[in-house]
Amino acid sequence: MDLADPLVYTSPDPVMADGAAYVDGAFCPIAEAKISVLDYGVTRSDCTYDVVGVWQGRFFRLDKHLDRFYASCARLRLTPPLEREALAVVLHELVARTGLSDAYVSMTCTRGRPNPAARRDPRASTNTLYAYAIPYVWLADADKRAAGLAMAIARNTERISRRALDQRAKNYHWLDLDMALMEALDGGADTVVLKDPEGNIAEGPGFNVFAYRDGVWSTPADNVLEGITRGTVIDLCAELNVAVAAGAMSEDDLLGAEEVMITSTAGGIIPVVSIDGRPVGDGRPGPHTARLAALYWDKHGDPAWSEPVRGLAAR
Amino acid sequence: MDLADPLVYTSPDPVMADGAAYVDGAFCPIAEAKISVLDYGVTRSDCTYDVVGVWQGRFFRLDKHLDRFYASCARLRLTPPLEREALAVVLHELVARTGLSDAYVSMTCTRGRPNPAARRDPRASTNTLYAYAIPYVWLADADKRAAGLAMAIARNTERISRRALDQRAKNYHWLDLDMALMEALDGGADTVVLKDPEGNIAEGPGFNVFAYRDGVWSTPADNVLEGITRGTVIDLCAELNVAVAAGAMSEDDLLGAEEVMITSTAGGIIPVVSIDGRPVGDGRPGPHTARLAALYWDKHGDPAWSEPVRGLAAR
Repeated sequence: MDLADPLVYTSPDPVMADGAAYVDGAFCPIAEAKISVLDYGVTRSDCTYDVVGVWQGRFFRLDKHLDRFYASCARLRLTPPLEREALAVVLHELVARTGLSDAYVSMTCTRGRPNPAARRDPRASTNTLYAYAIPYVWLADADKRAAGLAMAIARNTERISRRALDQRAKNYHWLDLDMALMEALDGGADTVVLKDPEGNIAEGPGFNVFAYRDGVWSTPADNVLEGITRGTVIDLCAELNVAVAAGAMSEDDLLGAEEVMITSTAGGIIPVVSIDGRPVGDGRPGPHTARLAALYWDKHGDPAWSEPVRGLAAR
Repeated sequence: MDLADPLVYTSPDPVMADGAAYVDGAFCPIAEAKISVLDYGVTRSDCTYDVVGVWQGRFFRLDKHLDRFYASCARLRLTPPLEREALAVVLHELVARTGLSDAYVSMTCTRGRPNPAARRDPRASTNTLYAYAIPYVWLADADKRAAGLAMAIARNTERISRRALDQRAKNYHWLDLDMALMEALDGGADTVVLKDPEGNIAEGPGFNVFAYRDGVWSTPADNVLEGITRGTVIDLCAELNVAVAAGAMSEDDLLGAEEVMITSTAGGIIPVVSIDGRPVGDGRPGPHTARLAALYWDKHGDPAWSEPVRGLAAR
């Protein structure tokens, strides 16, 4: 791939309309995107990933996601076989090939296969990379996003501790999140938030949480993924001159909030209207959440925060 | 597949000599055994697995492994698409197709792909199963198995807590184990053991640990996988009339042991001769470990503990 040449891909490939992938150095339809069952990315979930959104033909904060992806790789001692600029080219081309104007674009670096010459030494493996673009993924359906979510606090499952795994390295260790989510769904909630080992509120399946009270937004600072959308909310608060604080959040802090929202690349900013069946504020999405959400989506067209998908934009 | 018919597969398939797999209901060479990058087994490591050994043409304690596999599935609310007896038939046929007399036979049940009609509800996914047989995997090379391993105690990484993930459900959440292993290898050790959140000795990458002192073998009881080889050692101790105790093991308990060994389906019973550079006992593999290891391998030919691979045995 010659990075000096601008992409000239100007029409989507019909076989990639459902999604396009880049695996083992080649592009393929998402249906053919598979990895070996022997890859440590499977057998040890020894990998990191990142997800960036495309909205109305523009990547949102791609640089931030690439920064984090390579930082996650460094934390886990992974070396992606593509340099940052080459990966960016692949991500653009993936979206262009699908023809999707709204897309969920994922990249993963895995430890790779065991090295036959040093089977038990993960350091001896050749790390692998794959990526794909599929239609935009929403953390909640449109009606739920409008009405607000019912959240449960997990009582039987704790978030994996920072002492076992640095959650700042974005990872697929989600069994705690999935087990807690299923239990919350059983109980009639829409989603769930887990506590850290000290009993403070941490994060949920795919999102950070924010609580608003007395003019201040607060969000957990520790034992959480440092979400790009979380960071975006902090940036938006600065722009709006609204106070925001990252620190320990107790269950009482959450239950006593006037507004609660969750943040994720898969859906942006979504209001939470009840916790364990108790209404948040008046039980309806609040104005402070709505204000941030509106600005969040506005920024998706702002050249300072977004960039057009190459190839796709040329159509 | 008609379970009433005995398998008549009597010769290995040359394309499967490196390994055979069963994926999406069909057999294939191991090189073609792949899963979708969209499967929750990848994107959430939401899956369970088990591994059984084949030695000299015989499965060792297959029933115990199948018991545990289906118990792990139940703990994680997974329903394998194959019933136990049908899975056993697949495992036998996998080994027969490879022609391997010594094999590592793995089975995995994943949550499956997101259900388009209920994308955020893991309960709505159709669970999937795959399995494979490859040449027997050793946790350490022959020279290391004979000389004994140098073990480090992880200082910077804690084993994932039972409060986040029930380690009795065998899982691929191994980033803690891999990160600790790489750090131990950096320091010149051969392997590593991690502590649980209370600071007691837990387990290492793919093994349980045992310490011998004053006539008693002890092994951690909590925050560990209940390894089949661990259980086998307990059974062998009963047969030998040697005391064995499962309970909390402190770092001092481990450092003060006369003998230390690790147990795994990937290599059986392997002596540990130093911990953090300090010799265990006289720094050589000890007689109590050797006695158990010898009996362990003897049992692989005992019809009460093992069964011939069907098809393979008929050759």
